[in-house]
Amino acid sequence: MKKSIERFNEIIREKKLIDVAIAALHWDLETQAPKKGQELLSDVVGYLSSKSYKVVTSDEMVLLIEELDKKKEELTEIEGKTLEEVAKDIEKLMKIPVLEYREYNELTAKGQGIWAEAREKNDFSLFSESLEKIVEFQRRFIKYRGYEGHPYNTILDDYEPGMTVEKLDEFFGYLRKELVPFIKKIKEKGKSVDGTFLKKDFPEDKQMEFSKFIAEYIGFDFERGIISESAHPFTLNYDKNDVRITTRYIRNMLSSSVFGTIHEGGHAIYEQGIGNDIAGGILGEGTSMGIHESQSRFYENILGRSRAFWKPIYRELQDKFEALKDVDIDGFYKGINKSEASLIRVEADELTYSLHIMVRYEIEKALIGGDIEVRELPRVWNEKMKEYLGIEPSNDREGVLQDVHWSAGLMGYFPSYALGNVYASQIHTSMKKDMDVDAALENKELYKIKEWLNQKIHRFGKLKKPEELIMDITGEGLNAKYFVDYLKEKYGNIYGV
Amino acid sequence: MKKSIERFNEIIREKKLIDVAIAALHWDLETQAPKKGQELLSDVVGYLSSKSYKVVTSDEMVLLIEELDKKKEELTEIEGKTLEEVAKDIEKLMKIPVLEYREYNELTAKGQGIWAEAREKNDFSLFSESLEKIVEFQRRFIKYRGYEGHPYNTILDDYEPGMTVEKLDEFFGYLRKELVPFIKKIKEKGKSVDGTFLKKDFPEDKQMEFSKFIAEYIGFDFERGIISESAHPFTLNYDKNDVRITTRYIRNMLSSSVFGTIHEGGHAIYEQGIGNDIAGGILGEGTSMGIHESQSRFYENILGRSRAFWKPIYRELQDKFEALKDVDIDGFYKGINKSEASLIRVEADELTYSLHIMVRYEIEKALIGGDIEVRELPRVWNEKMKEYLGIEPSNDREGVLQDVHWSAGLMGYFPSYALGNVYASQIHTSMKKDMDVDAALENKELYKIKEWLNQKIHRFGKLKKPEELIMDITGEGLNAKYFVDYLKEKYGNIYGV
Repeated sequence: MKKSIERFNEIIREKKLIDVAIAALHWDLETQAPKKGQELLSDVVGYLSSKSYKVVTSDEMVLLIEELDKKKEELTEIEGKTLEEVAKDIEKLMKIPVLEYREYNELTAKGQGIWAEAREKNDFSLFSESLEKIVEFQRRFIKYRGYEGHPYNTILDDYEPGMTVEKLDEFFGYLRKELVPFIKKIKEKGKSVDGTFLKKDFPEDKQMEFSKFIAEYIGFDFERGIISESAHPFTLNYDKNDVRITTRYIRNMLSSSVFGTIHEGGHAIYEQGIGNDIAGGILGEGTSMGIHESQSRFYENILGRSRAFWKPIYRELQDKFEALKDVDIDGFYKGINKSEASLIRVEADELTYSLHIMVRYEIEKALIGGDIEVRELPRVWNEKMKEYLGIEPSNDREGVLQDVHWSAGLMGYFPSYALGNVYASQIHTSMKKDMDVDAALENKELYKIKEWLNQKIHRFGKLKKPEELIMDITGEGLNAKYFVDYLKEKYGNIYGV
Repeated sequence: MKKSIERFNEIIREKKLIDVAIAALHWDLETQAPKKGQELLSDVVGYLSSKSYKVVTSDEMVLLIEELDKKKEELTEIEGKTLEEVAKDIEKLMKIPVLEYREYNELTAKGQGIWAEAREKNDFSLFSESLEKIVEFQRRFIKYRGYEGHPYNTILDDYEPGMTVEKLDEFFGYLRKELVPFIKKIKEKGKSVDGTFLKKDFPEDKQMEFSKFIAEYIGFDFERGIISESAHPFTLNYDKNDVRITTRYIRNMLSSSVFGTIHEGGHAIYEQGIGNDIAGGILGEGTSMGIHESQSRFYENILGRSRAFWKPIYRELQDKFEALKDVDIDGFYKGINKSEASLIRVEADELTYSLHIMVRYEIEKALIGGDIEVRELPRVWNEKMKEYLGIEPSNDREGVLQDVHWSAGLMGYFPSYALGNVYASQIHTSMKKDMDVDAALENKELYKIKEWLNQKIHRFGKLKKPEELIMDITGEGLNAKYFVDYLKEKYGNIYGV
């Protein structure tokens, strides 16, 4: 028994080492690899993926899991949950033939370079062939893996265990019912908020300096992480001692780097806060992407777009940029919360953001379900934008090509953002019962907030499932009402509705 | 037969993919990994090294090589030489137990971070334990592998096939006999050259811009490579489509980034110039480190420190930096060639440079031979510096801690720099017979120089051994006379000796 566990842990460790190498190659591909070097690195990703696959799907491992599963009561809690998690992963993996798995991983490693070029050249046709293959793989893998209800359910569950189309239809239905009339009301009110100053001149090197400052300010630990640049901001964690974030610096768009950094910083703080008892193991990661996005969007929006957050540090920002000279903190606060229908998701305000997610949710559902094909995406995208936000992209760069996710095979991920917003509001409500959040912000005591999140969420990693976690913190399950209330109060105040 | 070759190539390819992953992790460790993340990444390096080892030392591979070796005449030239190269590598590898090989690779991956910190803190004791282990491994590996004559010969051969202590003693003896009196003569002459302007204020961001410019100017292809920063500049190649260089930006030392970039650029141009017929394979790399250094030092010194090189572009540099406003090209030329005994090898002038290498050569020889121990290094280093250059470091940062090599296990590498200088002079002499090198420089036609090197050297990779290569180009073997003549003429002119 002891020997079996040791061997089991050895194999898990071997997989971990390979997976770190794969992650490092992805990091390289997305932040710096030269154009013509991407093919070789993608081949390495494909090769290592097949190795990672083989290591955990070996006969030895399958037998070990069977054996340990029979003696579950002799395992510690961490061993038991690790076993469960691994068994689930392996079952999933073994339904996919290893060669297809390798090919798929090569494809998605290459996909991001192809997407980035297509996006840069504003030409969907450069990306569509690659995307078609990815979608084909996704549909096939779902068939291999099986599904209940809608095929999309299978991949939803990868990012948010237990999530289904049925639940999401209801969830988004509620958000739509509540938010669309409210947004309309705000628009009718006609009160305008000025955000133009955010599009003035913000030299990249100063933005870079400020990004480092703000990441550290909110609690990102640079001894255990770095910040870099990429076409689409993301967070990557090898383990709690190496968590990396990227942002992007656009000269006439301050929000992009500032809120991008705070957002990714929120993800990173989650990963850096994993408990030492589970660090480096299978359980030593965020429990779901919905909970992950709750952390990033909590930092980005609930904290980062609040007045209290900026009160003690706005002067710091203002001193850095000439363009903010005549903008007082009230103007700044309103500017960063200006609500209007816009084309780019990552730059959308909190109020209209969920509508962007609905567009993607419905498209993915239809794409995976086989109701639409890749070639139709630009058209469908624009139609949905028109339907939900009332505006239409004039080109694919600001339309269907804006997000990196599909090129990396991340179908099923988008709903996490909307879930994250909702979880974040629920968590915020609970946090306020324990402490004065605004006072912590105003006193530059962000460590208090981080510690609360560390204690209640981060340290558990995958030890608690999302429902369990949110239940323990808030006493109830996912409930979109808190988010709607939060938005109505915040935007009601700003726009006087 | 055909099947055997296919399988042989498959295994070679597998090793290549693993080795690229290892290289990518090294790149990450040396250019960006956060302090606390280095341990995990080093473990990954160790693990992948053992995988790389196992892939090529499998029973299957050993049998394949035996089989193919018997039917050598049926192989193409490239297949035959690949087989030779692989067989030699494997023989070397198999004498070392895999677990020790893994441990050693973990150790040297970690070593560089440890060295960087010791160097930064100017504290040899932080590094000595790690270095002792590395030296112990080196001595043990040499015992496993066997040696003829001096044990140091075994690792010299790794970087310069066929090189021995006997040859190097003679080689350095000649250089010493010729250069030491010449350097003395220059010193006695007392004519002073002003280089102080190179230590004025050169903002890092401008240096960065200029580094990119100069790399591209000499022929570095940014579609197939990137430039980054590290504590010690180096070049890393995955294959000809992904060749990476680093440099370092020191605000009051312009030479460091400019000549560091040109030096590494020379290495990179070699690797980017590998022939397509051998690219990506075992032969698709520079043939020896001596030849490699001939390319880097040819670009750095023979071209980069010549008047003709700067004539068409000095204005570009001058416009970038206020500090050069009053320095004309003649003053600049003399300044970048100022000769004086100095402490840091990478910043030494061409004339005194070889003395720095002699210090390292003698120390390594004694260290590997067991005549001195790691704890004695700071003292021995300072004594040798006093003996050869007449000056002594006041601390280890500018003494024994200055070079990254030992922390990475690169004992036996240093002589390559001196060999490189000599090869470079020989190559230069041949090149001048075929073309007007100065005219090419003055007309900004550096592509002509690159094409000559591509044709005569780069494209062959390891298809030609160093002696064969240098014989084909110059009609003779290694001959230090050309280097001595070059130095005497150049410095004779500058200093009027």
